[in-house]
Parts: sequence; C-alpha cells; structure tokens
Amino acid sequence: MLKGIASTQGDSYPLNTTTFLKRAARLFPHQEIVYRTADGGWARTDYGAYGKRVSRLANALGELGIGAGTMVGVLDWNNLRHFELYFGVPAVGATFLQLNLRLAPDDVEYVADHSQAKWIFVDESLLPVAEALAPKIYAQGWVVMSDRPASEIETSLPNVHFYEDLLAQASDEYDYPLIEETTAAYAGYTTGTTGRPKGIYYSHRSIYLHTLSIMAALKASYDEVVMPVTPMFHVLSWGFPQMALAAGAKLVLPGRFSAEDIGQVADALAAEHVTIANGAPSLFAPMLEHFRAQDEAPDLSSTRLISGSTEPPLSLMRGFRDATGADVIHAYGASETTPLVTTNWKLKPDMAGLSEAEQWDLKRSQGLYVPGIEVKVVDPEGNELPWDGKSMGEVLLRGPWITESYFKLDDSADRFLDGWWRSGDVGMFYENGYLKLTDRLKDVIKSGGEWISSIDMENAILDNPKVLEAAVIGVPDEKFQERPVAYVVTRKGEELTQEQVNEGLLGRFAKWQLPDQVIFTDELPRTSVGKLDKKLLRKDWEK
Amino acid sequence: MLKGIASTQGDSYPLNTTTFLKRAARLFPHQEIVYRTADGGWARTDYGAYGKRVSRLANALGELGIGAGTMVGVLDWNNLRHFELYFGVPAVGATFLQLNLRLAPDDVEYVADHSQAKWIFVDESLLPVAEALAPKIYAQGWVVMSDRPASEIETSLPNVHFYEDLLAQASDEYDYPLIEETTAAYAGYTTGTTGRPKGIYYSHRSIYLHTLSIMAALKASYDEVVMPVTPMFHVLSWGFPQMALAAGAKLVLPGRFSAEDIGQVADALAAEHVTIANGAPSLFAPMLEHFRAQDEAPDLSSTRLISGSTEPPLSLMRGFRDATGADVIHAYGASETTPLVTTNWKLKPDMAGLSEAEQWDLKRSQGLYVPGIEVKVVDPEGNELPWDGKSMGEVLLRGPWITESYFKLDDSADRFLDGWWRSGDVGMFYENGYLKLTDRLKDVIKSGGEWISSIDMENAILDNPKVLEAAVIGVPDEKFQERPVAYVVTRKGEELTQEQVNEGLLGRFAKWQLPDQVIFTDELPRTSVGKLDKKLLRKDWEK
Repeated sequence: MLKGIASTQGDSYPLNTTTFLKRAARLFPHQEIVYRTADGGWARTDYGAYGKRVSRLANALGELGIGAGTMVGVLDWNNLRHFELYFGVPAVGATFLQLNLRLAPDDVEYVADHSQAKWIFVDESLLPVAEALAPKIYAQGWVVMSDRPASEIETSLPNVHFYEDLLAQASDEYDYPLIEETTAAYAGYTTGTTGRPKGIYYSHRSIYLHTLSIMAALKASYDEVVMPVTPMFHVLSWGFPQMALAAGAKLVLPGRFSAEDIGQVADALAAEHVTIANGAPSLFAPMLEHFRAQDEAPDLSSTRLISGSTEPPLSLMRGFRDATGADVIHAYGASETTPLVTTNWKLKPDMAGLSEAEQWDLKRSQGLYVPGIEVKVVDPEGNELPWDGKSMGEVLLRGPWITESYFKLDDSADRFLDGWWRSGDVGMFYENGYLKLTDRLKDVIKSGGEWISSIDMENAILDNPKVLEAAVIGVPDEKFQERPVAYVVTRKGEELTQEQVNEGLLGRFAKWQLPDQVIFTDELPRTSVGKLDKKLLRKDWEK
Repeated sequence: MLKGIASTQGDSYPLNTTTFLKRAARLFPHQEIVYRTADGGWARTDYGAYGKRVSRLANALGELGIGAGTMVGVLDWNNLRHFELYFGVPAVGATFLQLNLRLAPDDVEYVADHSQAKWIFVDESLLPVAEALAPKIYAQGWVVMSDRPASEIETSLPNVHFYEDLLAQASDEYDYPLIEETTAAYAGYTTGTTGRPKGIYYSHRSIYLHTLSIMAALKASYDEVVMPVTPMFHVLSWGFPQMALAAGAKLVLPGRFSAEDIGQVADALAAEHVTIANGAPSLFAPMLEHFRAQDEAPDLSSTRLISGSTEPPLSLMRGFRDATGADVIHAYGASETTPLVTTNWKLKPDMAGLSEAEQWDLKRSQGLYVPGIEVKVVDPEGNELPWDGKSMGEVLLRGPWITESYFKLDDSADRFLDGWWRSGDVGMFYENGYLKLTDRLKDVIKSGGEWISSIDMENAILDNPKVLEAAVIGVPDEKFQERPVAYVVTRKGEELTQEQVNEGLLGRFAKWQLPDQVIFTDELPRTSVGKLDKKLLRKDWEK
C-alpha cells in the first residue's frame, strides 16, 4: 500500500461508537425515545435519561467483571433495555452479541457457544428460551430484564442477576474510556441456508463509519423520527438504532410484536410522525392493508419505509404512495456488509426524463451504492463486467465496513477474492449505475452455458393472478448441466396446468428456458427470516 | 487504550478520498459541474468527463515523477483545474498543498519552503506571483494552467510544463492504488495573526471522515447543488468540493472574482438553483444588497448559506430570509479542525417553544457540534466548565479530524492539553447544548479577576447607528492586570464623544467594565482574511 507524507490530524483518536453516545446524551437530552412496554402499551423517555441509564449499566457491567474482551449475549426484542445494551456493552470495551431468536434452537446454541458468550442478558418473556439454552452453552452468568421486581421472577437459570437491581445500585456517572477502534463492538452470525451460522464481528470503526454513511445516505438528522422495525437481533436492525442516536433523532421502538399487533405498530408509526422506518415487504404489506382498511388513511407523505430482504412488489410501492403518500425505498445489504450498502432513496436528477413506468422499474432495483465503499459485478473468472444492464455476474464488495474474514472459520477462503467479499448474489449494473440483483448464485440456473434467473422466472409466474406462490430451482441434467423446475401454489379454488404456466412465460423467456416440470403444491418451505428455502426444495426434488 | 475482541470487518481497508472519486465518476457521470472561465463566462462539464481528466492528471503526475511522498503546491482560484488537482494529487499518494493567496508574500514563501513543495501548479492569472516566488523557494518544477496554448504563454519560471499538454498526452484510464490512510492528502497552513503560519497536514482518513460528517450534518446528497464560494486555497473551502463530489451533487465553481463580480456570482447562485453555498458575512452582505436592488429578488427558499469566519449580523440573517427566503446558517471551525465542527443548521425540535427573538439569538450562535468529535469548554486550569450559558472558558476539541500536532513545529506543546487541541477561542455552552463563542483568548480582557468579552463590547458599541466600526483591546494595567480600550470609526459626517460611547454600554456592562479610553480613528487594521488585527492595535496603543 502506498505511504506518503505523514499527517498531523487526529489519526490516533479511535473511531468509537461511544463518541455518538456521549454527544446524544448531552446535546439531545430532551429528544424522545418512545418504546413499547411488556404489557403492549407505549411509554416515553429521552436521551438524557437514557444516557444516565447507560452510565449506570456501564458501571454495573464493571461490577460483574465485564470489560474489554468479554462477549455478552443478548436475547431481547426491540425494547428500551436492548437499546441500552447496544451502547452500554461496547462502551466498556466488551462485545455485544446479538442472539437471533429466529434461528433454529441448535443454531442459537451454536452461536452462543462458538462466540464464547460469558454473560447473557435476557428479557423476561424469553426465559423459556434461555433456560433451555443454559445447560448446553458456555455462558457463566445471566441477567434477567423485566419491569417486575426480582422477587416475582422465578427462573432455573444459574448465577442469575436482575438488570434493574444492578442499575439501581450503580452510579449514573461514568467516565467512558477510549477503545482501540478495531475492537469488536458487536458480533452477529449469518442466517444463511447453507451450513452453520458464520460469525461477523463488527469493529467500533466499522460501526462508526457505517453510521455516518447511512446518516448521509438517508439524510437522517435530529429533525427525523426513526423507527427500527427490523429486529434488533437481526443485523443490528441495519444500524438504525445507532443512526438515530448519532443523529439525535427521536426514536420509536416497537418492542415485541406479532402478526396481530401490526396494526398497533402501524398506528404508532403514524401517530409518532415516523419519517424513517425499516422492514421488509412481508411486514409492510399487512401495514398497508391496515391503513387501507381505515376510513381515512393517515398522511405519511414525510415517511420513508426502507425495505430490505427482497425486491418490493410494485403493488406495495404504488399502494403506499397512493394510500398514504409514504415512499417505499428499496435497500440492500447482508450481515457481512454491516449491512446497508445500496439504497434507492431518490432517483438521480438525470432520471427525470424516464417514463413513469421506467421510473417505477428503476425504483424497484437495489439502487445506488453508498459513499465510502466499492462494488463490482464479476464473471466466474473474477473479471469485472461492464455496466450495460445485461451482463449478469456475482456481486463483490470491499470497504471499511465489509467483512474481510469470518470469526474462527478456517475454510472460508472461497467467500473472498483478492480482498473483495463475494456476496453470493447475482446481479448487474444498469448503464445508469443502478444495481439490480437477479438471483442468488446458488439458485441461478446454469443451463447449456447460459444463466437463467430463478427469481425473474418466479416473478413472471406470479404475474398470473391464479398463482399465490412460486419457486424455481435448477435440477441436475446430464446434457444441459441444469434445467429449471417450478413449484407453484395456486390461490384457493384456482387450478392451473403446466402448459398454462409455461404459456405465461413465453413473452419473457425463450422456449428452451421454460421449466421442464411444474410441480403444484400446498405451500413452500421458508427459512427463519422468511426467504424461500430452496435447499429444502432441491432435497424434495431429489426424493 | 482498551483493546477487546478483534473484529472481522474491513479494518484493513484504508479510508481514502479516492473511493469517493471513483464512485462519483461512475455513479454520477451526468451530474453537472458549472465553472467560471478565465474570461469571466460560465462553462459546463460533468463528473464523467471530470473523472477522465483526473485519470489523465494522475497519469501525467506519474510522468513527472510525482507520487507518494511528493508535496505539490497549487496557486489557483475556485477553478475546474483546481478541483481536478484536489482529487488527482492525493490519488497518486502525493500531498496537495494549498497556497493561500491572501497571506503576505513572505508567508507564502515560508509555506512553500517549509513544506518542501517540489512542484507547483499555477493558474496563468497568477504567473506574476509565481515568478516572484520561484527564485526564493525549494520548488523544482512548475506547471502552468491555462485555456491558451503553451506557445502563447511567456514566463520566466524554470523547468516549466503546461497542464493541458500534459493531460492531452496522458491516458484517461488509471488504476487507482490504495493509500495508507494516515498519508497526508492535503496540507494547509494557518492564517493566524501571531507568528509564522503553522502546517496542518490532513490525512486521507481525516478528510474521508470529515466529508461523511458534513454530508450528514448538512444533509448533502445528490439532489443538492453545492457552490463553494470560500476560496479553495482557504481551509480547502471547508471541504465543500469534496462533500459535493462524495454526495454526487451538482457543483458550481465561481472561479476568480472580486468585489465588483459579486452580483454575477449571486446571479449564478440563483440561476443554477444552488442549495448549499459557503462564505462569510463580508461576502453575503453585498450579495444581499445585489438581490435587494433587483425589481424582484429570486426565490432562494431552498438555499442554505453556510456562513463562517464571524457571527453573522441579525440584519443579514433576517434580511436574506425576508428578501429571498434563503437561510443563513452559522458554522464554526478552523484550519486545525478540517474545519467544520459546529453548524447551526436548524434549531432542535425542543427549541420550538422559544420566542422569535430568542430563536434568532440562538441561530446566531455557533450551533451544535457535529457527530463524531468531542468539544468542551475549560477554565484556565483545564477543568471542564458546566453548560450553563454563563461559564466562559477556552474551547477545546478532539477527534479524528482535529489536529494533534503541527508539522515540524517543536514549540507547540502549549496548543494542546491532554490530547485535546486548544482552539484559543473563548466561549460557553448554553444549557441547551448550543456553543456560543464570545472572544479570542488573546483578546478577552482579564480585568480584576474577571473576563470582559471584547467582542460583546464591540457589538454593543456598534449598536449606536453613528458607529461604523469598533474594536476593543485589553491594555496592561498595574492594579487590574488589564483594562479595556476602544477604537471607534464613526460614520461619515457623524461625531461622538467617549462619554456618549460609554453611556450606550451601560445597560449591558457594569460601570467598572467600561473602556478607560475611547480612541476615534479613520479606519481599523485588518488581517489578510478580513478579521480585525488587534495585534497591530495593541502595538499602536503602546506607542
């Protein structure tokens, strides 16, 4: 690496998330944090009180012997105490481990053990999970979080402490130390469908940078209201809690909620004037239904719904715009990318000449990559492909908040190429710079030397109003290497034949690309985060 | 420093300004750069063409032997080629030295020599400056920038090359290397009134971070139009050119202009729909006059004028709001702080309850410090003072883009305290977190154990409509340590006595604080950047 004349600026001052914490507590003490309580109601505090509780927490962690080098697991929903741990644990030099409640139990066990989490903080509502986990893992101490007094809580957990008691006994003044910026502030594990979860350990540096980058990319400042709906145990809710605090923005935490609570969360979004929320189409779709069912849908014209996980359907994007004025914004990332690396926040000024249909089409793409990182699309030999809107290849990324290794995982060299992380996503750049993902590398169908996008084909099948769900997989073929097979779930009371399905694809696919087989089924298998589980489908096909 | 569990994220990927350059050229090729030409007209290019020219420049620099470790001086106005050098020089690992045209000639000579600038790039209009400098400094080669062919340019400069010829011969493809992030991308020297200019060398890291920070603080994205009016040879025009490029925003470069051109620059600001411009009250005041003189002032309700150097007068802030809708936003910084460390971008939501007068008063303050750094106000013993709106002390800063040393200057230990940079500014925090500067430490009058703000007193004297200019200095006093003395310039045809001046101060100052002497004079001495030169006044008083 080139090295030139040395600088005089603060290069020795470490990038620490603590710098944001201290600033928010001092500059924005009256900025509100609205949060959901265990009984489903809503309560309010502010960054001033929050800062004092985080200081108490930091002191309490010290009392427990938690400091630099300690891994601290957390089992909680999008609650206030979870948010306190978000900043309190890294502030003492320890590492905050997110325990993803949607992983299979033995994967959670694997994560808690592989990371050697010494202490685990658990919300009272999750005690059954914790108690089942306790005998099997490394953890040596437990802290239970609840609004109720310790005397009312029964648990079989060993070496157990109570969060509110610890905080009550601690001072609300804490002298925050500086921490080496490469120290892991957070640890998370992937939710991939292949193999064991893989450890991503996020340095203070990477979080500090990602926070500034998404503040800039989403124009988040102290006049915004941020609602992290994506679970705080899933890629740190994309860094939205940290972004809100760094910006000094009002924060709304929806707590634990299930499908039947979505109306309540949607109402809070409207009532608290949320301007930036995150989630996925599977969450935003019922929210839209909720608003549509009202006599008068709320005016959400200042609201931006940042939507990840999968390409949002046009019906969802237009639906929100028409019913409420809210803007559904597609964004892309992965655990390995901290995660937000592209957003489709607003069309570039030179896109104004496109037709409305073209603009919507572009708005559905993954969008533009954020400042500070690098992205390229490469062919199987690793050569960069042109930005021409047709050259499909694997998406590679590198930058200060992109993974360069997995924690204690030796056989991961195939995930990297010359310092770039291989996303496993197949996509292309349009000439105008917008990134469009078309498939997962393992799902794309390699047939006769050409690639067929399984996702494109699924979307085309879904255009038939009789179809409820569709999945396309590649199955081994002696002559063509792979051939497409489609799984289709029809809507209640509807029937379809293979010929009818294939006929609907003919406009968009060549005849040789059509599925060899269309299998009608009652439902499709999905992963813990709601994505189609094609690994299971392929197993099913082999039977 | 605490060190915990190691991370897996891209900590080894260096923070380089080049990452922004490559992204802008690829993602925003059609975004416009509007620039002023040598003949005073306006021309247009875009980031696509700009990126190609910077690649040519990088190749040309290599041909000249310029690379990692080379210091490259630049003598130019806010021109397109200047902006090319902004990214081209750091991209090859060399360091871009800003040569401040407003420094005294022997200070420019000192800077060029102290920094050991090996090559100097000079705009044709500044050849006389360069030719006077050449025999006295270390520089070994010169590059002349002009729209005219080399054959028409006569110069006595030794070892001279021509910018456009170099670029024409170079390839427009360049494979940008990664650079150690602590390498100095830029070098600048202070314009202080005491002693020699002091070298501030800005690392790639500090510029990358400052760029993201001000993008977030000013909500700069690709839907904005940025006009750096502050000279690009003065604290890098506060990083606005880098911010525009990193955001992918349209950029308007006003070139060289003098007092009589301000109307033209103001018209361009309106015509190009500039939304973020920087400058100082001395520049914005005549701009406002220009707009007021028009039959119909333009609608600038989307424009934010970021105003530094000194507290903007209320008449200027209200005047712009009333006449054009533009928002004058006070910001604070120094060469040592890269520079932007506070902005008064928008009042915090909880300030909505203040009266209009109170809100304006708050808007005049230096505002809120940006995310990612730390600021405190300390007493003479270095103890942090409370945020109470009355405890005045020196402002100290630390963070990744705050100076931690001066280049090759051994006796500067007094400018630092426990890792914090001492700004030499006297100020206080209001309880609401707004920073208010009241004086320079060397100008504040230490009288009988109390501090009197010279600036407060000057502003109070200026409230008298008969007064045109005022300066207050502290002069040595045996009994009280120091006593205030005022210098006053009355408006043409007006007369005042010491008693009348002091009478006007009585509401705001105690009797013992009033100036012992009021000296009436025809004009006040100013520094190269237009600030009152109190060093000269103190010398004058001693005579």
